[in-house]
Amino acid sequence: MILIMKQEVTENQLSPIINKIKEKGLGVQVNHGKDRIVLGLLGDPEILQTISFKSYPMVDRVVPITNSYKLTSREFHPQNTVVDVDGVKIGDGSFVTMAGPCSVEGEEQIMEAARMAKAGGAQILRGGAYKPRTSPYAFQGLGEEGLKMMRKAADAHGLKVITEVMDEAHIEVVAKYADVIQIGARNMQNFRLLEAVGKTGKPIGLKRGISGTIEEWLNAAEYIAVQQNFNILFIERGIRTYERATRNTLDLSAVPLMKKLSHFPVIVDPSHGTGIWDLVSPMARAGVASGADGMIVEIHPDPVNAWSDGDQSLNEKNYLQMMREVTILTKAMKQITEQTKEEIVC
Amino acid sequence: MILIMKQEVTENQLSPIINKIKEKGLGVQVNHGKDRIVLGLLGDPEILQTISFKSYPMVDRVVPITNSYKLTSREFHPQNTVVDVDGVKIGDGSFVTMAGPCSVEGEEQIMEAARMAKAGGAQILRGGAYKPRTSPYAFQGLGEEGLKMMRKAADAHGLKVITEVMDEAHIEVVAKYADVIQIGARNMQNFRLLEAVGKTGKPIGLKRGISGTIEEWLNAAEYIAVQQNFNILFIERGIRTYERATRNTLDLSAVPLMKKLSHFPVIVDPSHGTGIWDLVSPMARAGVASGADGMIVEIHPDPVNAWSDGDQSLNEKNYLQMMREVTILTKAMKQITEQTKEEIVC
Amino acid sequence: MILIMKQEVTENQLSPIINKIKEKGLGVQVNHGKDRIVLGLLGDPEILQTISFKSYPMVDRVVPITNSYKLTSREFHPQNTVVDVDGVKIGDGSFVTMAGPCSVEGEEQIMEAARMAKAGGAQILRGGAYKPRTSPYAFQGLGEEGLKMMRKAADAHGLKVITEVMDEAHIEVVAKYADVIQIGARNMQNFRLLEAVGKTGKPIGLKRGISGTIEEWLNAAEYIAVQQNFNILFIERGIRTYERATRNTLDLSAVPLMKKLSHFPVIVDPSHGTGIWDLVSPMARAGVASGADGMIVEIHPDPVNAWSDGDQSLNEKNYLQMMREVTILTKAMKQITEQTKEEIVC
Amino acid sequence: MILIMKQEVTENQLSPIINKIKEKGLGVQVNHGKDRIVLGLLGDPEILQTISFKSYPMVDRVVPITNSYKLTSREFHPQNTVVDVDGVKIGDGSFVTMAGPCSVEGEEQIMEAARMAKAGGAQILRGGAYKPRTSPYAFQGLGEEGLKMMRKAADAHGLKVITEVMDEAHIEVVAKYADVIQIGARNMQNFRLLEAVGKTGKPIGLKRGISGTIEEWLNAAEYIAVQQNFNILFIERGIRTYERATRNTLDLSAVPLMKKLSHFPVIVDPSHGTGIWDLVSPMARAGVASGADGMIVEIHPDPVNAWSDGDQSLNEKNYLQMMREVTILTKAMKQITEQTKEEIVC
Repeated sequence: MILIMKQEVTENQLSPIINKIKEKGLGVQVNHGKDRIVLGLLGDPEILQTISFKSYPMVDRVVPITNSYKLTSREFHPQNTVVDVDGVKIGDGSFVTMAGPCSVEGEEQIMEAARMAKAGGAQILRGGAYKPRTSPYAFQGLGEEGLKMMRKAADAHGLKVITEVMDEAHIEVVAKYADVIQIGARNMQNFRLLEAVGKTGKPIGLKRGISGTIEEWLNAAEYIAVQQNFNILFIERGIRTYERATRNTLDLSAVPLMKKLSHFPVIVDPSHGTGIWDLVSPMARAGVASGADGMIVEIHPDPVNAWSDGDQSLNEKNYLQMMREVTILTKAMKQITEQTKEEIVC
Repeated sequence: MILIMKQEVTENQLSPIINKIKEKGLGVQVNHGKDRIVLGLLGDPEILQTISFKSYPMVDRVVPITNSYKLTSREFHPQNTVVDVDGVKIGDGSFVTMAGPCSVEGEEQIMEAARMAKAGGAQILRGGAYKPRTSPYAFQGLGEEGLKMMRKAADAHGLKVITEVMDEAHIEVVAKYADVIQIGARNMQNFRLLEAVGKTGKPIGLKRGISGTIEEWLNAAEYIAVQQNFNILFIERGIRTYERATRNTLDLSAVPLMKKLSHFPVIVDPSHGTGIWDLVSPMARAGVASGADGMIVEIHPDPVNAWSDGDQSLNEKNYLQMMREVTILTKAMKQITEQTKEEIVC
Repeated sequence: MILIMKQEVTENQLSPIINKIKEKGLGVQVNHGKDRIVLGLLGDPEILQTISFKSYPMVDRVVPITNSYKLTSREFHPQNTVVDVDGVKIGDGSFVTMAGPCSVEGEEQIMEAARMAKAGGAQILRGGAYKPRTSPYAFQGLGEEGLKMMRKAADAHGLKVITEVMDEAHIEVVAKYADVIQIGARNMQNFRLLEAVGKTGKPIGLKRGISGTIEEWLNAAEYIAVQQNFNILFIERGIRTYERATRNTLDLSAVPLMKKLSHFPVIVDPSHGTGIWDLVSPMARAGVASGADGMIVEIHPDPVNAWSDGDQSLNEKNYLQMMREVTILTKAMKQITEQTKEEIVC
Repeated sequence: MILIMKQEVTENQLSPIINKIKEKGLGVQVNHGKDRIVLGLLGDPEILQTISFKSYPMVDRVVPITNSYKLTSREFHPQNTVVDVDGVKIGDGSFVTMAGPCSVEGEEQIMEAARMAKAGGAQILRGGAYKPRTSPYAFQGLGEEGLKMMRKAADAHGLKVITEVMDEAHIEVVAKYADVIQIGARNMQNFRLLEAVGKTGKPIGLKRGISGTIEEWLNAAEYIAVQQNFNILFIERGIRTYERATRNTLDLSAVPLMKKLSHFPVIVDPSHGTGIWDLVSPMARAGVASGADGMIVEIHPDPVNAWSDGDQSLNEKNYLQMMREVTILTKAMKQITEQTKEEIVC
């Protein structure tokens, strides 16, 4: 930890802060910069955090050195982690598609959606049985009945299942039917829920919070990882910005950045990322090109009549077209990977 | 609901959308604007929401007319709601202070904090026993032991208690010791938790989400209100913006805006709103002047050694000074209220 | 324009507003929704804008129907506009690269940068001679000397020139040396400058403002277009968000969105969009895949010693590698375009 | 400047970076933290900035120590600067009101507005003659004619004049009629304009940019101050955030923060800060309580017919009521100041 003093602070004013540091058994190095004194603190970061240095009026800024996340960091695990979703590998260089409706609405709808998903090449079926809705009067999901329907539809078409859990009480039932448990954007920092899903050992799809920073997202994953669950998928789903022409702003630079800082796979969600169906395909393509390990996308047999998120759902025709485009780009990305294997990039 | 068509759309292209509207038993009015057709839809808003109008390529924009929140709205309840916290009235024109440390750290610390709080004129003791922390390695709170200590300290000084609950599993124990249950910023849209605390019937302090919109906040309150719990306190605690010179940006315009749109009291949190101890007093004063019904503020007997949020906590001297200033401004605000009673503002 | 009244407003309270509307010679349609009255106003939008409807306490919301931009809109010009930069076509389906240093630093540096740019396949040389710098003490650019050096370097390697102009006083000299005049992010709403560069008739690279909305950006282009200059290139360079792990958040969804709303080409700037050199290549690739018409990228013979923006500049090796990747993706995108020509997407 | 190395970097990998530092004649101190090496660089900050340390792959983060602004900083000038606007003192502990319409619309309107402004106690008349408008088709201001009318109206009522200048070409004419030259939010980083108004020596009202950071704002002032013009007024007018229920988010914490970091007065603009007329009074009051040196507010004899910003303009009745409230709060603030004079706040 580094402490940058205010400009007017002189060395003989430092004793209270230096005494406090020494009292805690920490080391300190006093550096005289051109016009400021800078203290370098040495010792256990967890002890360092027990002192509120900003409470000292003489301190201008506090700069932490160490990241608070460990197991999630690329330093801890230099190789890519490959997450195995009951045989579907994510993070091994392939591009995995998860597709399905926002909500499970009934047996027929989810069966038809699963057929569509499979026809386009998706390997995992998405769908919500427990829905986080802004208004208490909006449709809240079919619950366990929905889970059953989704499992049946997925099995009928050789697909895996990803679905969201919103509270601890439903983890058991969700884990029974799902292959990947999704933590939604509103729950990225629902820490008790993170711990609880961590304990299931199941693959966890961890969506970035509505205004989650990269650092908070990495720390949220750490809550799962400390439960010895290393089956984590980061899902970039767009962040809240001043721009309201799109539902969210899809932050694709998070893909290479997260892959640089962490070893877990990164998935993009162009549906929530834009909120507008005719922007989904371009952003799916851009997601592939950014180096993502997969995508999760909303499709619906009949978007006009979808009970939720119809605006951003693709119908069959548009979905199949998008998947053809994604396939072409996936091949191009493979060509790039193979080419760079023979080269060394500084 | 209003549908604004794309510019090139002509009346005879509207049949699919008009048929769909009629099929649902809704009325429709076709308006020919200068260069666009606009449809006014009439009928039950809940049925209107079952159609994804943006899925029709001819639709440019969808404008909802009705708010999704009802019980929370000023229209539903034109008078101010006064929340009674075991005898302490909030929303009756007085200004109520809640003060205390970020975390309960031990019996002595919370007892001392309660003494300080009382000395400055606070009526409610704040303190965390279950702490939402970005990192799993940070101090997570003392749990029920902390609650007990806080209750004891509050009782010893004639104070009420507000404390946060983070998950359903702890609602019962928190409700046992606390007078007001706080929902933290990260849980503003933890809908199951909102429903569950709603059911307790206790006063609920509902913090605005880290990037919660005014509309989402009102809808979050609606989740509590539909449980027939009308003891809701909105707490403005700053929002996340691009500006990082302060921890958050305290949105004081939310105070008069929420009071215009809703009947529940609004409390400001200048500690989290700024994150910097020497900005707390000015923002507390500004909170009073904005028309808030109270404030919640972090104080600590020894901020330098606080286990959390020491940077934004006031020591006794600064807290007492702030309270003197707040008292002067509260009186000025009372003078304004009395003066305007005799006048009619357009 | 649509006026949504407050819930409690009854028809016989509407007379002041209706009288005002009629007084201006406008038409009005009164619609009774389920629980609110909605007024549809008919007539010239410019007259509509002369009334401040929100000043009437009975008005809840005002919804405009018509966009304020016209010449810039896709409705006005349904085909893509192809901008011709002295023989280099932008917007015709190809992907054009503009590359060069942040600042022109000297003859040798810009000559070497031009050689690099050309070697990688760029067609336009970028470089700043007038630099907008946060601090008055930072290097402000070489001015006309820099322009001369850049022109010479570009000519020596068969490249065109794009460079920024910051104030009206320098338009003439910049127009003398440059093929494309760039308006920087800080000047997106410097309206007098927009008008003045519009009058040159030269191609204009209009960067999105640091927090420019899509609508403001389109309107800024309109300031140029009303000067009868239709040689406009939109440059998405990232927007300011709460996330500070990257310099800006590159909003790639703006590419398909701007191409839907306007007919002018869209260029991406992965250098400013990320601010971190090793994120530039992935975002350049994603830019291609999003459907952009080109990119503008910072390269430098020796980034460590760059006088500005060295952090986000690519050295020769990395730039050439990026260009190989971009070429592969450009081919893939061409394959997609050809394939979809034979299909009809709903 | 401090360089934090990546975790895996060892001391013997540091030679390229250390050689570069020494080559520039700078000193370097190598600190071995618990799990990282940290370099402290010593020497002239301007030389330090000529090296792009982030270009070295071994560098994780670069932490600057010194602020880039100097003349603007509180360290440079510990006492408050009092700006003298032709006899009206700003920054001396009083609260100065600037009031008037958004745009000058005609002789009668501005004369009537000046009468209103004076009646409420304002000392400075605001009004726009050159208007920055999002759309080129919107009213752009009356130009010099408007300036003349405003000067006449101000003189008739014993008021000073503040008005915006948008480009260099109009500085001379604006300076002729105005007592304070305003730089609008869109021009906070129009650096050539800042230099040019700096040279006039006139008081400058420098609005915070639409998404200007505190640091950028201080640096923008530095562009004026380096012209030896120390008559700077910072105007907080709200920042752009994700929240669109208000036009902007008025960041009142900027008032005490700017006064801590700089010696120039700070003015609040509750009109643009909220964009909604009935939020203006509460935010004006909060502005007083936050410690601002004054406010600038939009009033209009007939807001419904205002040519611009009618939505946020106060009519006479509401303006006079607001001024009564502001007066009460100003007295309360004086009481606080006098009281604290006798005390020492830690």
